[in-house]
Amino acid sequence: MTESELSNAAMPLATSAAIVPRVAIIVAGGSGTRMGADRPKQFLALNGEPVLLHTLRRFATPALGVTTLIVVLPPDQFASWTQLCATHQVQIPHVVVAGGASRWASVRNGLAELAGHSTGVVAVHDGVRPLTPLSVIENTYAAALEHGAAIAAVPPKDSVRGLSQQGSYALDRSRLRLVQTPQCFDLELLRRAYNLPELSTFTDDASVVEDLHPIRLVAGDYCNLKITTPEDLLLAEVLLRQEVKF
Amino acid sequence: MTESELSNAAMPLATSAAIVPRVAIIVAGGSGTRMGADRPKQFLALNGEPVLLHTLRRFATPALGVTTLIVVLPPDQFASWTQLCATHQVQIPHVVVAGGASRWASVRNGLAELAGHSTGVVAVHDGVRPLTPLSVIENTYAAALEHGAAIAAVPPKDSVRGLSQQGSYALDRSRLRLVQTPQCFDLELLRRAYNLPELSTFTDDASVVEDLHPIRLVAGDYCNLKITTPEDLLLAEVLLRQEVKF
Repeated sequence: MTESELSNAAMPLATSAAIVPRVAIIVAGGSGTRMGADRPKQFLALNGEPVLLHTLRRFATPALGVTTLIVVLPPDQFASWTQLCATHQVQIPHVVVAGGASRWASVRNGLAELAGHSTGVVAVHDGVRPLTPLSVIENTYAAALEHGAAIAAVPPKDSVRGLSQQGSYALDRSRLRLVQTPQCFDLELLRRAYNLPELSTFTDDASVVEDLHPIRLVAGDYCNLKITTPEDLLLAEVLLRQEVKF
Repeated sequence: MTESELSNAAMPLATSAAIVPRVAIIVAGGSGTRMGADRPKQFLALNGEPVLLHTLRRFATPALGVTTLIVVLPPDQFASWTQLCATHQVQIPHVVVAGGASRWASVRNGLAELAGHSTGVVAVHDGVRPLTPLSVIENTYAAALEHGAAIAAVPPKDSVRGLSQQGSYALDRSRLRLVQTPQCFDLELLRRAYNLPELSTFTDDASVVEDLHPIRLVAGDYCNLKITTPEDLLLAEVLLRQEVKF
């Protein structure tokens, strides 16, 4: 989707957004141990700026019309983030909320901050996905407005196998999708889902919601990297520097 | 695995290799259309050399003890490859075999070239996976010698969903693996599997073999990229230039 297509697509939604506000919960709970780095991966420098700032900036893009931005961070990272925001002169209004013991608990804390909102479409997004195309964010919000629950996902590039007692067996990858974020939901639906007890099977917000409501899949993007390993950070730098559009 | 650990690990296998030779079929069938490039992706320049040459060089590493290298290419790419080998002064002995209408047919053609081999462990590898760590190749050959069939695979980093009539449903990603290559097999087993008719469900060699023999999974590597999209080539360049070891 080109910039102009995005603007056009956003036109009717700007009207809807006056009725159903868009909000976003950006969850950054990483400790950085998997990256072998000296700080949490959301604070690692990506072209000189923290990963989390790149992510926040995407969601603050005016064309998306997001009215409330919530960043969920472990409490012991608040001071570092405040310092980073000062260093990088961050002007983006956002609320920082304390994370919990699990991703589920962190998102629930973010939701609690939205108690004053009666309606809305809420995006839950990984703080360490700094490259999400605006078109993917736009399309996921739009699909959630229409269908109640929508998440970005891509087909696996590789063959996929399931593990069994005897070894492993081939799965039909055309029937599988790798899940990304944003994951967007009707606010009231997401509240109901997070009022239920936490289960060990929750790996993302779609798995929290799916017993209450079908999950719509929206085309994600292979460039919508989750910064998990050192090679991800290298690729993100290359993609940003070259401003490659796929 | 460090270089010295690899050498140590290879010691007993060097003895086994005297009895059971290691051979490799490198399959390069791409046309390049998905890359938007002017040539097949296996010929794209990766730090100044064709992707396929990087791949071939990995398998020709003396420590691995691979005795026969077969490269499967579409017939209309033979001349280009010959030219590229001349340009880059490639000294690696290898046999070029004509690919077929499908990956299955291409591997079968590669196998036919091994008609003179009575025993062996054969690795089938994607020509566009130029960064496979030697330890992954070594471990997959070794596991296939012990178990008959072994393939490299990694756990998905993302949540995975299955598609259903109603929408989608969460899968337990801890029970799933993304399949890479090399895929290594007892030569006689792979011959028997490729004597059976081609099925539309074949996506890799494990799926061809699995009805005859259980498939052992070996730890792959997230750096074992398959060059499929332009961002993969960018990442491969960065990884090679920085010689990052994960």
